[in-house]
Amino acid sequence: MKLSIEDLVDVGRGAAFLGTGGGGDPYVGRMLATHAIQEFGMPELVAPEDVADDAQLCTVAMLGAPTVLTEKAACGDDVDLAVRRMEKYLGRSIDAILPVEIGGVNSMLPIMAAARCDLPLVDADGMGRAFPEIQMVSFNIYGVSCTPLVVTDDHLNSLVVDTGTAKRAEDLVRVASIEMGCSVILSSYSMSGADMKRTAVHGTMSLALEIGRAIARGRHNGNPIDALIRHLRTTPYYSECRVLFTGKVTDLRRETTRGFAIGHCRLSALDSSDRVMEVTFQNEHLVARENGEVRAIVPDLICMVDSETAEPIPVEALKYGQRIRVIGVSAPPVLRTPEALAVVGPQAFGLEDAFVPIENLPESSTSSASPRGTQK
Amino acid sequence: MKLSIEDLVDVGRGAAFLGTGGGGDPYVGRMLATHAIQEFGMPELVAPEDVADDAQLCTVAMLGAPTVLTEKAACGDDVDLAVRRMEKYLGRSIDAILPVEIGGVNSMLPIMAAARCDLPLVDADGMGRAFPEIQMVSFNIYGVSCTPLVVTDDHLNSLVVDTGTAKRAEDLVRVASIEMGCSVILSSYSMSGADMKRTAVHGTMSLALEIGRAIARGRHNGNPIDALIRHLRTTPYYSECRVLFTGKVTDLRRETTRGFAIGHCRLSALDSSDRVMEVTFQNEHLVARENGEVRAIVPDLICMVDSETAEPIPVEALKYGQRIRVIGVSAPPVLRTPEALAVVGPQAFGLEDAFVPIENLPESSTSSASPRGTQK
Repeated sequence: MKLSIEDLVDVGRGAAFLGTGGGGDPYVGRMLATHAIQEFGMPELVAPEDVADDAQLCTVAMLGAPTVLTEKAACGDDVDLAVRRMEKYLGRSIDAILPVEIGGVNSMLPIMAAARCDLPLVDADGMGRAFPEIQMVSFNIYGVSCTPLVVTDDHLNSLVVDTGTAKRAEDLVRVASIEMGCSVILSSYSMSGADMKRTAVHGTMSLALEIGRAIARGRHNGNPIDALIRHLRTTPYYSECRVLFTGKVTDLRRETTRGFAIGHCRLSALDSSDRVMEVTFQNEHLVARENGEVRAIVPDLICMVDSETAEPIPVEALKYGQRIRVIGVSAPPVLRTPEALAVVGPQAFGLEDAFVPIENLPESSTSSASPRGTQK
Repeated sequence: MKLSIEDLVDVGRGAAFLGTGGGGDPYVGRMLATHAIQEFGMPELVAPEDVADDAQLCTVAMLGAPTVLTEKAACGDDVDLAVRRMEKYLGRSIDAILPVEIGGVNSMLPIMAAARCDLPLVDADGMGRAFPEIQMVSFNIYGVSCTPLVVTDDHLNSLVVDTGTAKRAEDLVRVASIEMGCSVILSSYSMSGADMKRTAVHGTMSLALEIGRAIARGRHNGNPIDALIRHLRTTPYYSECRVLFTGKVTDLRRETTRGFAIGHCRLSALDSSDRVMEVTFQNEHLVARENGEVRAIVPDLICMVDSETAEPIPVEALKYGQRIRVIGVSAPPVLRTPEALAVVGPQAFGLEDAFVPIENLPESSTSSASPRGTQK
């Protein structure tokens, strides 16, 4: 299967939704991918089951604060260099590029890398969403080493990191990425086709495309939020979903610190009730609380979209007064196991709340209305 | 030529002197080297001119704040790993180990590395002293790339850094070293035998040995400072030397910050005059000022020794009330060229004073007496 350049708009929109506020602005990624495709051609998208068990894969991604990614994008040579350094260190050539996260800009970077390196792209990733840290990925949770891990920058400086644990690699790469300008190219999680099949979240590139298309179709029909929710309910991973809140941004605290975009956003209800939702983020949204009660919590997805167009709004684009719907979505089941929650659950982000699947959390009486009910 | 384990005491003492306050406590290095020699045998010390032009060399050193190096030494496996990673990245085996600096602990690390890896050790280095940063080395000044640069730690994590400039590598490695505990093993400046002959400071391992022996002989004869000065005057690089000051430590400010030991030490004259010397350091001593006038300045060597035993005193061992002689020594000529001063001169350390060779600086009327004159 091949994507078209036109598909990239839908993939990008779907990926921005799955980015849950983080993952970097997909617009930047789409420009990078489009440019690469125009120069090198569109890569083949292969289903995970069609990858040979002994194929050598690696991931390619951007890492850094999304607030910086939008200003300091990949130059292309840094992407090639990351793959070349990985091949050099492994002592064998890479057979296909595997997305590490489907959320945001990192849905596009692998397309760019696959196009530039003339390699197929695997229709899968390690999250089915976005997460801020390197170890927060199904590959790591289920035993694939994140190292050797290659970091490159637009000055074509490179690092190869080889550590005992993914968390150690994360700590090292984070300080290096800050020193390299808060935005770098990363190649990691080199693995066999067999390990990919065992540990990846399958089919997520196609899922991002279909989510993006659902929003586009909904706009055409004047009902994008409804179309989005209805489509999500048909997907394998994201079927438990609901509009958590409809409100406008009344408080926003967002800092680029420790190499992350960290802060919270407060929304006040549009229905003139005194209901308030506060969403906390570290690049991605971590927990959504309505008047103090948890309505959705990581690793489940908390997505903010424009209340009219359903356009996903990344953290760095949040503005005072914006009208937003907050949508909660179930995470892929591989992220909800006890071993996964140890790595990507609330405690991994320093939160005290236990993980409760969104389908088991109480709904606000007002926001629990079907999307149709809150549609104007 | 082979050193003996007994020689290590003299090499260590000479290297501590050439470390100009930095370079890490040679005692730690000597313990590491002794242990390695007892287990693996003493490596061959080869003269630079006896190394084949097409031999593949690399340096091995510890990097970090000397205040931390004394507490967190190499474990041995980290040293082997650094050499193995370098070989892997270069795609060829290393033929000999080259010291990067002769000052302090890094006179010993290469002995340890050569013993463990069963490789010869080259009698040369890139400084003829110690400096705090990776780019401050004759290899870099005269065109040898410091990268690929391997960093390892005692948990056997590794980084391979490949950058356009040595300063960029320094910035990256410094933040990584802090993250890895402020003390790491470094392998860098891989080069051919021909490049080593062209760029290295030759014979410095032997020179450290002879300086250490001169101090030991002087102690035997009751006159170690005199013996040290007289010996230095016979050496090829260190012949311009003088006792700058004799005093006791009356003020000491020493912080471990940005991965360095940074601060200054003030000495008051023992002769009941109001003369005061202030010595500023960044790991190594940078400038010695007597009542505000420069008496010696980097890259010339500023060495503090115990006023009775001539034992070199590293920055981390400085104590209030200590009686010290400050000795100024000419740097090897390759460090005094305009291209070298751009990298290791006063401005490279943020100082405003111009470099003036010690032999052209005025002497204090009191301290200018010959060493014999200030000997008790």
